[in-house]
Amino acid sequence: MAEAKEPLSPAGAPIVLLHGFWHGSWCWSKVAVELAARGRYSVAVDMAGHGLHARRPAAARVDPFDPRLFATESSPLAGTSLADASDLLVSQMKKAGGGRPCVLVAHSMGGPVATRAAQLAPELFAHLVYLAAYMPASGVPIMTYGQAPEQAGELISSALRADPRVVGGLRIHPGSADPQYHDLLRRAFYHDVEPELADAAIAMLSCDAPLDFVVDSTELTTPGWGSVPRTYVVCERDHAILPPLQRRFIAEADAAFPDNPTHVAGLESAHSPFLSMPDRVADIIAGLSVTRPAAAGSST
Amino acid sequence: MAEAKEPLSPAGAPIVLLHGFWHGSWCWSKVAVELAARGRYSVAVDMAGHGLHARRPAAARVDPFDPRLFATESSPLAGTSLADASDLLVSQMKKAGGGRPCVLVAHSMGGPVATRAAQLAPELFAHLVYLAAYMPASGVPIMTYGQAPEQAGELISSALRADPRVVGGLRIHPGSADPQYHDLLRRAFYHDVEPELADAAIAMLSCDAPLDFVVDSTELTTPGWGSVPRTYVVCERDHAILPPLQRRFIAEADAAFPDNPTHVAGLESAHSPFLSMPDRVADIIAGLSVTRPAAAGSST
Repeated sequence: MAEAKEPLSPAGAPIVLLHGFWHGSWCWSKVAVELAARGRYSVAVDMAGHGLHARRPAAARVDPFDPRLFATESSPLAGTSLADASDLLVSQMKKAGGGRPCVLVAHSMGGPVATRAAQLAPELFAHLVYLAAYMPASGVPIMTYGQAPEQAGELISSALRADPRVVGGLRIHPGSADPQYHDLLRRAFYHDVEPELADAAIAMLSCDAPLDFVVDSTELTTPGWGSVPRTYVVCERDHAILPPLQRRFIAEADAAFPDNPTHVAGLESAHSPFLSMPDRVADIIAGLSVTRPAAAGSST
Repeated sequence: MAEAKEPLSPAGAPIVLLHGFWHGSWCWSKVAVELAARGRYSVAVDMAGHGLHARRPAAARVDPFDPRLFATESSPLAGTSLADASDLLVSQMKKAGGGRPCVLVAHSMGGPVATRAAQLAPELFAHLVYLAAYMPASGVPIMTYGQAPEQAGELISSALRADPRVVGGLRIHPGSADPQYHDLLRRAFYHDVEPELADAAIAMLSCDAPLDFVVDSTELTTPGWGSVPRTYVVCERDHAILPPLQRRFIAEADAAFPDNPTHVAGLESAHSPFLSMPDRVADIIAGLSVTRPAAAGSST
């Protein structure tokens, strides 16, 4: 153990992998192997309300399925807040890093959780990577972006099977017997993933995600989030967070924190490159800490 | 990257975590964080037919549920063999280790897969840990142990919802609406785990596991499996693989390979200590490679 705790160069910083809504640590298993093949070790964590912390509505297990019940049962995650999630992430990063700053890779709705955590504890972040993730501007709740013209045509909102304001969560139905709905989930998350792999992923999705994560927002400061070196990986064929919105995040962050510009990478992938091109995702993550000293130099 | 690929002491060997039947990489997320807190990094992989490689029978998604259909549909994993699984594990270990031998931790039915891989490629194994796992004797298929007096009273067989010989797989029904069946799964796998965490785990279980893994067997040799330092972690409150059977595995291995005796550790846990006591599991894994030189010295 001793030698593993000795200080490493930035290229050896521990990597923490944070999934998005309805996913869990499971979605990173291919990337983790690819990172290890590149000499880099990672820890995939479960976000609050997800993976081993997930809680399903009872209506998800009613037979036969009752759409009305499913649309009205309060979410077991209605009380889970963005603050809860960022606190959990901070504690996971402290443990995973063993006192050293980590490279944090956030996918999709992992973005606002990572953003809040970086604002609270920037010293824990060696680098922050947004992979087709929400990267909200200061004080802007995620729900605002849902109305943005850049997001017109996204597929996630049509996959919701309950009014978020009624149930206190964003509810999808991965166990649905309806082939059209199953296909909608596949197109929204995994349209460039081979069908059998997409089916395996859909079977592991949870039903509910906490409403507060899209309602709450985080005030960003220069010594807080603004001090953390960041990379945005644009997924150019994304149907969940459309590429124009991804580019807007970058433009707004660079306008607000011009001394710490976003490093930008791109993938010709849909929303889930951890499944469709895990080797390329690993290349980007393993490669970026090499540029970290420069990024750190340009931060304020 | 360069310094992370430099040779490490045995205590720094990469750790690969292999789940059991119906589970996936997701079950290790708490252990992975605890290991990292101890300065050790791990890679949780998906076994053939599991996690991102899982394939569900179509009957799992029929609404309303049809027990007769579920009991008779051929398993999509009927063609997946123990050889496929060990080949996949060898390739995952080669990647994850980056050319270095790994500590492999196998849970439950990960045991025979790890056993076959260690027989095929002992040079990839720095240490092999069986965590409440099947550790079959040379040439003995796992199904033989199902009839053993040491296994009388186990709960897994009563959770099967199809004849394995008919469907070509061992099929459970984690999505069942029957509260008694749900409780059976909980008692079989997770009876000492808090109910909400157990529910989250049950929701991620897959339906089918390949029949061949319990039918096929591996011939063990002294330069093969017999040369790998091994630890068995007995879970003393296990309802799936009963403690007397776990101790029989140790006795039979030590009788067959007396020059490389099993290191033995114990946990007062049910079948899934990665959920009920991840810190203790990490303590054992992080601690054992310290004893590795002695173990290696006693191997032939």
